[in-house]
Amino acid sequence: MTSTPSFPTIEAIRYEGPDSTNPLAFRWYEADRVVAGRPMREHLRFAVCWWHSFSWSGADTFGSPVFAHPWYTEGRDEMERAALRCDAAFEFFEKLGVDWFTFHDRDLAPEGASFRESQQHFARMLDRVEAGMQRTGRRLLWGTANLFGHPRYASGAATSPDPDVFACAAAQVADALESTHRLGGANYVLWGGREGYDTLLNTDLRREAQQLARFLSLVAEHKARIGFRGTLLIEPKPFEPTKHQYDFDAAAVHAFLVRFGLEKEFRLNIETNHATLAGHDFAHEVAYAIANDLFGSVDANRGDPRLGWDTDQFPNDIAETTQVMMLILGAGGLGQGGFNFDAKLRRASVAAEDLFHAHIGGMDALARGLLNAVRIVEDGEFARAIAARYAGWDGPLGRRILGGESDLAALREHVRTHGSETLPASGRQEYLENRFARYL
Amino acid sequence: MTSTPSFPTIEAIRYEGPDSTNPLAFRWYEADRVVAGRPMREHLRFAVCWWHSFSWSGADTFGSPVFAHPWYTEGRDEMERAALRCDAAFEFFEKLGVDWFTFHDRDLAPEGASFRESQQHFARMLDRVEAGMQRTGRRLLWGTANLFGHPRYASGAATSPDPDVFACAAAQVADALESTHRLGGANYVLWGGREGYDTLLNTDLRREAQQLARFLSLVAEHKARIGFRGTLLIEPKPFEPTKHQYDFDAAAVHAFLVRFGLEKEFRLNIETNHATLAGHDFAHEVAYAIANDLFGSVDANRGDPRLGWDTDQFPNDIAETTQVMMLILGAGGLGQGGFNFDAKLRRASVAAEDLFHAHIGGMDALARGLLNAVRIVEDGEFARAIAARYAGWDGPLGRRILGGESDLAALREHVRTHGSETLPASGRQEYLENRFARYL
Amino acid sequence: MTSTPSFPTIEAIRYEGPDSTNPLAFRWYEADRVVAGRPMREHLRFAVCWWHSFSWSGADTFGSPVFAHPWYTEGRDEMERAALRCDAAFEFFEKLGVDWFTFHDRDLAPEGASFRESQQHFARMLDRVEAGMQRTGRRLLWGTANLFGHPRYASGAATSPDPDVFACAAAQVADALESTHRLGGANYVLWGGREGYDTLLNTDLRREAQQLARFLSLVAEHKARIGFRGTLLIEPKPFEPTKHQYDFDAAAVHAFLVRFGLEKEFRLNIETNHATLAGHDFAHEVAYAIANDLFGSVDANRGDPRLGWDTDQFPNDIAETTQVMMLILGAGGLGQGGFNFDAKLRRASVAAEDLFHAHIGGMDALARGLLNAVRIVEDGEFARAIAARYAGWDGPLGRRILGGESDLAALREHVRTHGSETLPASGRQEYLENRFARYL
Amino acid sequence: MTSTPSFPTIEAIRYEGPDSTNPLAFRWYEADRVVAGRPMREHLRFAVCWWHSFSWSGADTFGSPVFAHPWYTEGRDEMERAALRCDAAFEFFEKLGVDWFTFHDRDLAPEGASFRESQQHFARMLDRVEAGMQRTGRRLLWGTANLFGHPRYASGAATSPDPDVFACAAAQVADALESTHRLGGANYVLWGGREGYDTLLNTDLRREAQQLARFLSLVAEHKARIGFRGTLLIEPKPFEPTKHQYDFDAAAVHAFLVRFGLEKEFRLNIETNHATLAGHDFAHEVAYAIANDLFGSVDANRGDPRLGWDTDQFPNDIAETTQVMMLILGAGGLGQGGFNFDAKLRRASVAAEDLFHAHIGGMDALARGLLNAVRIVEDGEFARAIAARYAGWDGPLGRRILGGESDLAALREHVRTHGSETLPASGRQEYLENRFARYL
Repeated sequence: MTSTPSFPTIEAIRYEGPDSTNPLAFRWYEADRVVAGRPMREHLRFAVCWWHSFSWSGADTFGSPVFAHPWYTEGRDEMERAALRCDAAFEFFEKLGVDWFTFHDRDLAPEGASFRESQQHFARMLDRVEAGMQRTGRRLLWGTANLFGHPRYASGAATSPDPDVFACAAAQVADALESTHRLGGANYVLWGGREGYDTLLNTDLRREAQQLARFLSLVAEHKARIGFRGTLLIEPKPFEPTKHQYDFDAAAVHAFLVRFGLEKEFRLNIETNHATLAGHDFAHEVAYAIANDLFGSVDANRGDPRLGWDTDQFPNDIAETTQVMMLILGAGGLGQGGFNFDAKLRRASVAAEDLFHAHIGGMDALARGLLNAVRIVEDGEFARAIAARYAGWDGPLGRRILGGESDLAALREHVRTHGSETLPASGRQEYLENRFARYL
Repeated sequence: MTSTPSFPTIEAIRYEGPDSTNPLAFRWYEADRVVAGRPMREHLRFAVCWWHSFSWSGADTFGSPVFAHPWYTEGRDEMERAALRCDAAFEFFEKLGVDWFTFHDRDLAPEGASFRESQQHFARMLDRVEAGMQRTGRRLLWGTANLFGHPRYASGAATSPDPDVFACAAAQVADALESTHRLGGANYVLWGGREGYDTLLNTDLRREAQQLARFLSLVAEHKARIGFRGTLLIEPKPFEPTKHQYDFDAAAVHAFLVRFGLEKEFRLNIETNHATLAGHDFAHEVAYAIANDLFGSVDANRGDPRLGWDTDQFPNDIAETTQVMMLILGAGGLGQGGFNFDAKLRRASVAAEDLFHAHIGGMDALARGLLNAVRIVEDGEFARAIAARYAGWDGPLGRRILGGESDLAALREHVRTHGSETLPASGRQEYLENRFARYL
Repeated sequence: MTSTPSFPTIEAIRYEGPDSTNPLAFRWYEADRVVAGRPMREHLRFAVCWWHSFSWSGADTFGSPVFAHPWYTEGRDEMERAALRCDAAFEFFEKLGVDWFTFHDRDLAPEGASFRESQQHFARMLDRVEAGMQRTGRRLLWGTANLFGHPRYASGAATSPDPDVFACAAAQVADALESTHRLGGANYVLWGGREGYDTLLNTDLRREAQQLARFLSLVAEHKARIGFRGTLLIEPKPFEPTKHQYDFDAAAVHAFLVRFGLEKEFRLNIETNHATLAGHDFAHEVAYAIANDLFGSVDANRGDPRLGWDTDQFPNDIAETTQVMMLILGAGGLGQGGFNFDAKLRRASVAAEDLFHAHIGGMDALARGLLNAVRIVEDGEFARAIAARYAGWDGPLGRRILGGESDLAALREHVRTHGSETLPASGRQEYLENRFARYL
Repeated sequence: MTSTPSFPTIEAIRYEGPDSTNPLAFRWYEADRVVAGRPMREHLRFAVCWWHSFSWSGADTFGSPVFAHPWYTEGRDEMERAALRCDAAFEFFEKLGVDWFTFHDRDLAPEGASFRESQQHFARMLDRVEAGMQRTGRRLLWGTANLFGHPRYASGAATSPDPDVFACAAAQVADALESTHRLGGANYVLWGGREGYDTLLNTDLRREAQQLARFLSLVAEHKARIGFRGTLLIEPKPFEPTKHQYDFDAAAVHAFLVRFGLEKEFRLNIETNHATLAGHDFAHEVAYAIANDLFGSVDANRGDPRLGWDTDQFPNDIAETTQVMMLILGAGGLGQGGFNFDAKLRRASVAAEDLFHAHIGGMDALARGLLNAVRIVEDGEFARAIAARYAGWDGPLGRRILGGESDLAALREHVRTHGSETLPASGRQEYLENRFARYL
């Protein structure tokens, strides 16, 4: 089967600069422009996700599929549609100019009637994907296994009350991890799908934590065994689909990893929308991950601040992308991670070119954030302001406290002797926000 | 100075049973009734807090004080009012029939013009408190230091950018911890007041974590030095007053403690309203603490599920109290912890007897929850349902997985051989909720 | 085609009283027991919905269908499955002992390839439904049209930017309204599906309001023309699927109706979960509707107070059902309305009997609330407390103010003369909450 | 008493353009620059509020005052501090270059021991304010009365259960309205303070609505009587201080006004933070008010999207200010309204110049939004896109529907004849968001 072009009217998207009025051009993202010592493409490592962009036909809780793209409607069976989808995806990656993509096993290839048949489907599609990668030079940012869609996972995968379900999950991850390795993936992601609970009345929290820890250990062992050098990533999310997801936020995953001695094996894939659902700013979760040496990668799909579910929108808040890029630059960059658009079109965006608009907008939002952040970091004003604010900790009292040469009694004596008149200097939040706004 | 009775028209509150229509009687709380092997008073270990009940005169962000009780309006100065307050408090504890109370240093005695004067105030009031304890047989559930009210703490205490502020906090805690020890307190609490941030633009997350860890280490050392045997407790809260509190929820504190090797020194004081503000059910936070061996004590003040700030209301949801008591019974009880009413009257509840109504309602809500939970635990239906649900894990596959005798490849082979047809049994949530409702 | 029983192992659910341990029995709902002058079945007018209970096979945003009931998996085509579903539904209504049901046109019968074919499908299934009603004596609480599932409604129905879509919606409502009339429906409901917006950037708010008003006028006219005597109901919801639903809450619908002169034609169908998503207690929305003469009916499906989407759970909070039943009794009862379980099983509740457990639990929760409320209303304590609280308004000043015999200047003179020393009496919230708890 | 300068080191803030690095300069707000036919100062009509900026000393629920500005700490009594505050305020208005201010009666002058004394205080301070206005040329955007701070208002003002409290509120409003008139105020605002409820158990919703309607009628009558030509504004807010505020959002106020026939007398003062607390975007509330001919003025203080209370922060989101300015330009401008900074410093912003930074940042954020919006409106792309999207409504079917020449039956016939194949065109949300981003 040979595919005809899926986006015949669209040519490769080019950088045309901020003044361009061409909606099918980048205004900020200039892949090969070097800033802060690297081309923008290396700073940002953009990835398109297979599932929302090529495997979701627009159905939601309230309505049926709306997208009439050929890979949803043509082909004689699911495998043919999977092939059409694969070709459309690589055409899209090339025309958009992204270097990376991401996938779940089950959006590359449909679930079969048996596990063996699913393996065959997956293997056949992997060949096609590999060919696409060779033909186009695109690379795999990360692979993952869908451990939440099939009915067997209705009560969790690793945390299922049924060990047979755990085994199925293990089998899928073995394949997905090896496939990721085969395709040269830079990372492998575990998103906790339905690892959580809907009611404590039927849940043994302690036992499920042990199951999950066992699962993660097995994954780390398998990684070592097959020689995969990519990073294993866990993606926090607080709710949805379950009432309580075990990987609630960066701190919850951190606690879990440290408790089970897994903190050297896993890092975090922070998603904007999951952060905000958990009650955190996106920047907070990134900052937390960095401050605790757990930062791995980013899913760059925002939510709507008024809505309480994962809306998976493309990023467009420049203040937010700037702040996050400041943090990432400060941490030395994304490393093996990237910015994956785990984002989906609004359901009414039924035109083929909407997929381009969405990604162009997201890439420009992050590129503009990068450029702003580079200027901020190079100016150094914020770093200096922070250093000045904590300067007292470099003085004798501060050094004594942090150096372990003091205790509560000695500090009390210090206060009794020297008084407690010091009031803190202004936090200068409004001043700093104004300075920050200068860069936007 | 001798106080006249503060609640002259109110007599000791007695248990009168569920059919009583006397609003100044308990309908469920029968202090000396033995259930599940202990008197109810030992199961519940109720405590009244000094601050909301005796030091808050009804001012809120939008209005001035409204409570005209003598300890707010009489006395010639703050120290005299503190004495009136102390006497009113012990009268209240006795009439209400609670065994325990809790305090901050600065609601026992007013801040002085200098740290030394504050120490003198505090010492004088401690004598009065100690006399009250001896006279009435009441005991201290926990003490704590107010490290957030004074202007010096506007940018945090242990996490202040100024080490002088850290020193002041250390001095206060030294005194408060020693005072708690002197009064025979069962625990000492650290609530992170303003330990958090309002903007990342002026905040060094990594540095502040180290300051906080240093502070907690000093507290643990001081505890050991003075021979205090009570439990050190940290109380999570997600926001308010700061935009992000470092002790966001149980998992965040857990991560912090494990990372800094402090998990043996501290346990958690879970507050209902803080749990719900963090996006968790109260029961979740208790279950998490128990499952991670961190459970310490409870602040039993609920929020309003529609409101996004700490409303500090008295508990009245029997389903919630029952579920939490099930968890606590399952964990062997409160241990050294208790149920502290860190709850406040609605501002329009200006009558003196409203303080009694509020506590009676809260105590009855928890007592009724306890009685329900005892029946549930004794019937054993839920324990059996959970055991049955996970029974597969006691079979050969389950034991192999958890026993470390399997790996991903072997499990994949298992699935290839045995198939993946198993679908999980019903989670039976609605059935279990109905069974639970039988006990309410 | 003849159906075999869908629930062969389940017999008619009977009332067995609070002490029953039979999970397939009512503990509180005794259909023919007369309280406050009416049988409980008339107080509560329970209805089962066709869509969640018989047309939703357990797919969610993250996973595929899980329910393997015959009406999802058997039959040679959608129309045969629709027939199986119909027979299962009436078997369920009878065994459960509910008198009423509710439907959307498109869950009774599948959408056809053309509007005419859809009409044929619908007509054929209506015959079967009518036969079921005659055979079983069940009645239709309300019908409605699904104006959100089909791709054509992706940008709204009445508020679509395309008048052809408006026409399709009109055509469906004409059929659904006439069908509701034919089946003797007590009400007809309009839930605003996708009437709202996802971004103001593509939306003309003023114009869409006019379209919606026009649509509602046409519905009211058609109702008159065909002689339908049931009540037209609008169901508020704040978000989901759109970012902003025009029928946000009771007050928003109220404003809309009054502005367009439609307030005599429509009443409100209040849904618990929609109320809480909008930031209101369920009781608030009911109280608002009653106080503004707009109360019509109830969708009795609660949410989870921690989750920000419509979880559609069966009610189980007795305090909530009691408070709402107090309001409804105070308003003279449900009138033509009812309690419709627009609620769905948790996705892991895959056993056939889970549908019974869910409804039994919901019916008992409301029945228990009714019984509590009857006692409360008959005791009269709350009514007396409220009357006493506002008694001042029956005095000379209050009558003068409300009677229009005063003005600001006169009231100022009154205050200048008589002073402003009066402080309000205690609001007694904790006292009243305790009294309320006595009835639970 | 003569005041010395309160901000001696700060000179008049000047416009220096986007490239300025002077933190005490405007980068976007150029008061006299004419855009879209008017000077920016007339487009924006900025106002400083008296209360947060000059009467709030930094106390919050968790801590005591922190601001040590002279008008909080000097002066021998409250009246002297009120005078210092007045002089500081006018100095600030002048140096900042805002034309307008706003006040509550009780932040201009302290409450006295009696109503008469309060009147005397207020009258004396009004003289001083009037002198300040004459001296500086500043004008009053609106006045209002504080009907929530005094203990008498603990259960509401107009909706109090006690008519004496209603009378006190009436007296205050009479004075505040007359004072606003005397000072040439452009508007008079009513914010519903504690008009709402904390529990339905003690509340008569219907009765309180009638009280509130009566109160508003009296205010409208008094306005007419004294010849005040300004606009009466109601400011919606959903919660805080009460659990449910009657003026929940724009739609709730709209419903109330229309129901009681007051919609010609009042317009809305929309506050950003109140909008978002109610679950709406700021732009939504403005758009709703405009589409329903109720738009009056704006309180431009944003919240934090993660926090559930009124944080009252200065605006800094350019996308938000741009979108709102598009709406306001489309409605013909602010009219008699303005942008009032009902915003407060973060509590740690203790330096005197922080008040300048905060206002400069807010003014620049709105000025930049204005400049963006002017370009957007002048380009006309969005207006054209919206017109094109709804163009079908200008065709024969659309005109027939809206012109009242069709009915449901005819539309059904139309669909039966012409089919229902039309699918809506793409909503183009991502495209439009990208176009919008071009202007930021």
